[in-house]
This record gives sequence, C-alpha cells and structure tokens, in this order.
Amino acid sequence: MAEYSVTIAGTLTTLISERKYTTVRDILVTMNPSDIAYIFAELEEDRLPIFFRLLPKELAAETFVEMEPDAQELMIRAFSDSELREMVNELYVDDAVDLIEEMPANVVKRILSQADPQLRKEINEILRYPENSAGSIMTTEYVSLRPAMTVEEAILRIRRTGYDKETIYTCYVTRDRTLLGLVTVKDLLLAEDDEMPISEIMETNVISVNTHTDQEEVAQMFSKYNFLAFPVVDAEYRMVGIVTFDDAMDVMEDEATEDIELMSGMMPSENTYLRSSVFELFKNRIFWLMLMMFSATFTGMIITGFEDALAAQVVLTAFIPMLMGTGGNSGSQSSVMVIRALSLGELEFSDFWRVVWKEIRTSVLCGIALSVACFGKLIFIDKLLLGNTEITYLVATVVCITMALTVLFAKVIGAMLPMLAKKIGLDPAVMASPFITTIVDTLSLLVYFAVANLILL
Amino acid sequence: MAEYSVTIAGTLTTLISERKYTTVRDILVTMNPSDIAYIFAELEEDRLPIFFRLLPKELAAETFVEMEPDAQELMIRAFSDSELREMVNELYVDDAVDLIEEMPANVVKRILSQADPQLRKEINEILRYPENSAGSIMTTEYVSLRPAMTVEEAILRIRRTGYDKETIYTCYVTRDRTLLGLVTVKDLLLAEDDEMPISEIMETNVISVNTHTDQEEVAQMFSKYNFLAFPVVDAEYRMVGIVTFDDAMDVMEDEATEDIELMSGMMPSENTYLRSSVFELFKNRIFWLMLMMFSATFTGMIITGFEDALAAQVVLTAFIPMLMGTGGNSGSQSSVMVIRALSLGELEFSDFWRVVWKEIRTSVLCGIALSVACFGKLIFIDKLLLGNTEITYLVATVVCITMALTVLFAKVIGAMLPMLAKKIGLDPAVMASPFITTIVDTLSLLVYFAVANLILL
Repeated sequence: MAEYSVTIAGTLTTLISERKYTTVRDILVTMNPSDIAYIFAELEEDRLPIFFRLLPKELAAETFVEMEPDAQELMIRAFSDSELREMVNELYVDDAVDLIEEMPANVVKRILSQADPQLRKEINEILRYPENSAGSIMTTEYVSLRPAMTVEEAILRIRRTGYDKETIYTCYVTRDRTLLGLVTVKDLLLAEDDEMPISEIMETNVISVNTHTDQEEVAQMFSKYNFLAFPVVDAEYRMVGIVTFDDAMDVMEDEATEDIELMSGMMPSENTYLRSSVFELFKNRIFWLMLMMFSATFTGMIITGFEDALAAQVVLTAFIPMLMGTGGNSGSQSSVMVIRALSLGELEFSDFWRVVWKEIRTSVLCGIALSVACFGKLIFIDKLLLGNTEITYLVATVVCITMALTVLFAKVIGAMLPMLAKKIGLDPAVMASPFITTIVDTLSLLVYFAVANLILL
Repeated sequence: MAEYSVTIAGTLTTLISERKYTTVRDILVTMNPSDIAYIFAELEEDRLPIFFRLLPKELAAETFVEMEPDAQELMIRAFSDSELREMVNELYVDDAVDLIEEMPANVVKRILSQADPQLRKEINEILRYPENSAGSIMTTEYVSLRPAMTVEEAILRIRRTGYDKETIYTCYVTRDRTLLGLVTVKDLLLAEDDEMPISEIMETNVISVNTHTDQEEVAQMFSKYNFLAFPVVDAEYRMVGIVTFDDAMDVMEDEATEDIELMSGMMPSENTYLRSSVFELFKNRIFWLMLMMFSATFTGMIITGFEDALAAQVVLTAFIPMLMGTGGNSGSQSSVMVIRALSLGELEFSDFWRVVWKEIRTSVLCGIALSVACFGKLIFIDKLLLGNTEITYLVATVVCITMALTVLFAKVIGAMLPMLAKKIGLDPAVMASPFITTIVDTLSLLVYFAVANLILL
C-alpha cells in the first residue's frame, strides 16, 4: 500500500510540473477520498493547494475530512474566503465539529465566519456537549418522518431530502421533535402496501442514547445490537441527532488504544505514534516512570532492613529478580483480563466474588506448577548442572514457597483492584501492570524474607 | 442493565409457571434479540425451550444467534427435527457458519442434516476458507444486479429479493459473477432518472478484499473507508460474498483483546473471562510464566557472578528492584505504543529508523529527568532523611548512570523488537512487556555491575 502510493504521488507531481491538470484530475476522481488523502500526505506541502483545487467540490470536502490536522490547517490557510466557505458548507456537521476541535483558535474563527448560519448554529450546539459524550460525536443530519406519512410519501421525502444526510437508511419518526419510532429503508422498500401509514410499520421500541451517554458505552451498544445508527435524545426524549456506526468504530479503536496505553503506564496520547512529538511522548511517559521509581523506595527499604540476613545468605539475592518477575507477570495477567472484560461490558461489580474465586483456583494451579518446576530447576540445573553449591534443599524450599504465595497474592490483587477502581469511579486501566507490579514487588519481598526467616534462620 | 434483566427474568418465570403464555409472548416481542438472549441467560436451563418456542420464527432465529454457545447447544438438543430445520434455515449463512464452528461434532451433523441443500452448500463453501480469513467471516447473501438494469428495475429487484439478504444498502453489479461495480440504495433512490441504466450510475472503482485477506486487515479497511460492506472476490475477481460492518466490529474487538492478552504474556482466550474455565485460564497463562521463570536463570547467574561485589557493598542490592522496574516499565511503554501502531496500520517497517531515532530522543529526556530525580531522592530522602549512611555520592552516581543507560536500552529495544518480529512474520504483540522485561532485566543488571565495577571498585 505505502509503496504503491509513493509511486502515484511521484507520477502526480511530475504531471503537475508538466501542467497536465486534466490528467491529474482524471486520475484523482477515480479514487476514494481516504486514498487521495493518503497520497496527498506524500506530496510536498506547497504543492498541496494546487492538487486540492483540481478536485470536484464534493470529493474535495470528503478528502479534506480524511487528511491529517497539520495538512488541514495548511490548506485552510491557503484557501481564499470563498474557497473556505464552499468547503466548510459541504462538510457533515460532525466532521465540521471534529475539524474545529483540532484547529488553533484563529483558524476556528475563520472557519466559523465562513459557515452558513444554520451550520454554525448546529456546530455550536454540538460543541456544547461534554467531551466523549454521545452529544459530542453525533451529527444532526438525519432523516425525520412524520407518523401519518404513507410509505410512498416517506420514500419521496427521503429522495428529496436525503442528499446531505449522513445516513438515509434508518429514518426517525418524530412528532414535535419527540422520538416516536424508527423505520428503515429496507422496511419501506419491502413494505407490501405503499399506502400504509408509517405509524403502522415503524418500530416503536427504539433503543436510544442520551446526549450525555459516554461514547464508550455508545460504542458497546453498536457491537451489541449491530445497528447502523442510534438516535440521540435529550432529557425530554426529544430527538437531537444520531451517532453512526463509523463514528462508533473510531471510538472503539481509540478507547482500546487508550486502555492499552494506560495499562502500560502511559498517559493516553492525543496523536498517533508517528505524529507525536518527542516531547509529547516524554510528557506522557514520565509521570508513571517517576511514580514507580519513587514507590521503589519501599522495596529498597525492605531489602535494607534484611541486609544482615542477605549478607549471611547471599544466594537469596540471586532469586529476587525471578520472584518479583513471576509475581509481576502473574498479577498483570489477571488484572489485564479483568480490565478488558470490564471495558467490553462483560463484567459487572456484582461478579466480584466470582472473579476472586476463579483467580484463587487459577493461581493455585499456576503456583503449584511453577513451584514444582522451579524446585526442579534449582536442584537439577542450578545446583547439580551449574554447580552452585550455595543452593541447598532448604533454600530451594524457601524460594518455591515464596513463589506459590506470590502468585496467589498477585493474581487475586490483580483481579480485585481494577474492579474496585471501577466501583469508585476510576478508570480500571490504571490498575494494570505498573501499578500492580509495584504492590506485588513489595509483597513478594516481604513474603520472601518472612519465609526465609522462618525456615533458614 | 444487569439488575433490570434479572427482574424481568423473574417476572417471566412467574408468568410461565402460571401458564400465562400469551402475556410472556407479548412482553418478549417488544424486545430486541440481544436483550432477549441476555434475559434468557438468567433463566433456569430447563425452562429455556418453553420460552424459546413462544417467540415468532424470525425473532427466535435472531435471538438464537445472540445466545451463548452452551445455551445454543442445549436448545438444539431440545429441538425436534422440524423445529431445528425451521430455525437453521432462518439463519443468515455467516451466522450458521459461526454456530457450526462452536458446536460439537454430533450437533454439527444434526444441523447440517436439517439445512436446505442450498444453505448446506453455502455453509460448506465458507467453512473451506482458512480461519481468520475474509472468506471465513463473509456471508453469501448479498444483492447482485446486472449492468443493463434500469434504476427502476434495480429497485424492483431489491424489493423482490431483499428480504433475506444481510444488507440491501450496497448492491453489487456483476456479469458472469465478475464484479463490475457497486451501487448503493442511496444512489438508486436519489437518481434523477428512473430509466437510467445501472452501468451509468454504478461506482466502478470498487475496493474489494480477497477471500484469503486476513480478517484484521479487513477490519482496518472498514475503519479507514467507513463502508457498510466490502465485496469479497476470489483469485479470478469473481464475487463470492460480502463482509459487513457488524462482523468487522466484532473482529476489531477480538483482535484488540487478543493483542492485549498477548502483550500481557497470555495465550489468546477462546471465551470471555467469565465463561473461561479455571483450567483454560491456567493453560493460557502458564506457558509464559514458565518461560519467564526459566529465563530468570540469567539474572540469577549475573547476581551470583557479582556476589563478592555485592557482599562488599550490600547497599547495591537495595536498588536492584528499582533499576529493573524502571527499565521494564520504560521498555514496555515504547514496545506497547509500537505494537498498537503496527496493529492499526499506522506504522510500516520502512519507518524503522524514524522510530528508533524518536525513541532515542525520548529516552534521553526520560533518562535525564529520572536520573536527576533519583539522585535527589537518594541523597535527600534516603541518605539525609531516612539516615541510610551506606548511600554515598559515588553509590548514588552509579545508580543514576545505570538508570539513564537502562532507560535508553529499554526504550530502543522495546521499539525495535516488535517491528523486527513483524518483519519476520511473527505477531508483534508477543514482543511486549514480559518478553522485553526479561531482556531488560538482564541488561540492566549487567550495566549496573559494570558501572559499579568502574566507579566503586
């Protein structure tokens, strides 16, 4: 894909320098907006406006939506007022809102000044909803029908008004803006009688979301119900917009990325990896690194406290990384599974004890298997094969008991913390690997020295 | 949601025991299949068939698709042959395939024996495609049109044949099964002239996928192009089916879950967390735990090798967890970001050096910030405040130099390994936290003792 586009970009640049504008236009109009945007990203920036002006109005707007924010800003600055007006008013409302959210203040001002009054009003309405709410990702361009219309009238209305609607396939039946039901184009086309009133074929049991519903919840509803769109209603059940499946897909992807980043001890990033500056990456990563470095004070203190024991049995030090590593990995396994299940809505807080019981049994199995394997490894590999005479049966026993107990603690804590976090309104994803590891590191050392004290000293 | 359904399930059970079948039916038909399936999951298993038989045929099939495999199996065993026949032939082909892939062999045999010959043929065709390919998730039920049809004829054809198609909104224009173009219902409805031939309004530049295209790639195409469906063609560009957006959403979710599990050192699970047995959880987790435990032999050997140094400067032991922890966390941050970007198609192998250079600069910033903070912490908190007199300026210098170097190594290796893995055809996700941590643990100890040797001894 990448290689292919680079070649196309080269061809287009050559054609443009030869002033073969019609040829360039002919090539571009065969393409999909996403692909054109992808190719444009490969071009030299100062050529961009020339290419862009060759696109027909509608394709230009669709391509513009797919471009990266830097390129969009560059284009807007190159546009004349009338070019900008034409482009902005060709956009769907939700795309216009996305654009405005990405642009710096002076560009936003220019965009809004060129938008039609109706569009400007709709943009401002959507901008008023909280970030990450259904209201903030919805579009106000949907087809609304009246309950008394016949099937034929409804189809006529769709044909007349459908052109600039984000989707025509699900239409909403309203009276005084109150949502009464929905009807799909499939229902309309397959209806046996064209004279039947919409009120008789509409689905009245409509599943809607509220303007304030969290976007992650909306995305989950899409994957549960497989609908093309959900209506968005306000507190009075008046219909204000729709969220479509393509927005839900973007939300799903973004939320998964955010979870993954949080789980790995990073602040969620605003940009894609390649588009993030080094300073942004640094800023997103340093907080957790600092926090975890400082929290290592505890492990340091524990080791210092047991310095005498360690000096007497130096061999014990050699197993600290293995024990802490196994504990950390065990804990992050269970925490990550629980976090993902919470994100997908598969787990509720009411499952708390079921989860704990599952983890106890799993960790007993893992603990036994690991301890037995570890005992074998210590005796047969480390002691007999590698000839480390400091490893006695007692030392091996201490290490293996610690391992089994650490795995148990790690898995149970790893599963409990994300659920508790969710209960008190925190994002469960912060309770993943780095956080769990810090707790488990401390616990495993305490267990290690306690067991060592009991058996060896 | 959960609480609400439990109450409904209770009400329904009461109504059934009072034999108020009509009331139960009236309640159920107002609901969405996903919700009915959710409520059914709360019912006692032996009541299930009674409830199920109350549903109208189409709703019954739609609900069945949404049920969990255990419940589906239970239902099929309770069905008479004629009931099973009715239900199976009501299913969409891709749902029938999903069902067959989940059921044990004897149930599969019964399902196939009741399927209509046409359906059985289609099921078998799809089953022949490799797992996770576009062919394996497609459906063969799409609307196909001929290029010579007029808009009016096309609409008529959709009205006649659309009823049991998975989607009618995107129709495919074919000649001798070769894909020529596509036309949407929106294009048809908004066409100005009903007599225009389809060949004149169809989009000929169709983006299609091959039967063998990986399902993850297909899902990425949905999020890139925002289409409702993609046509699936064979090697001769003959159209064999379509993949719809709802299947792509499921794939996106599953692939993100799989990545997250692999990144946390687990084999990808077949079932959701609550539905996985303890033994399954154990099986998915123990492999990496064992591997990482055995690989800790290296860290053990390094520590043993430097035992004399450690015995002389016992204070050095206290900082091992902090150094390994910081290294592990730094490495997993960069590896996870790179893995996610690779999954979403944002990174290519050609970006390799760009990524490495970005990570070098980021790690220098992180390394300096962490070292300075660590030096301050060691001197002001640990030495002066907590009175640990063993910490000298030289010891603090050793620790901080090691920290800066470890962060650098960790971040660069963490970013490189997933890209190299992808290049040689491995899943980049296995190069995350647990794997990186093991390498970084070893490296950080080597650096620690080398620096200590140089400065302290």
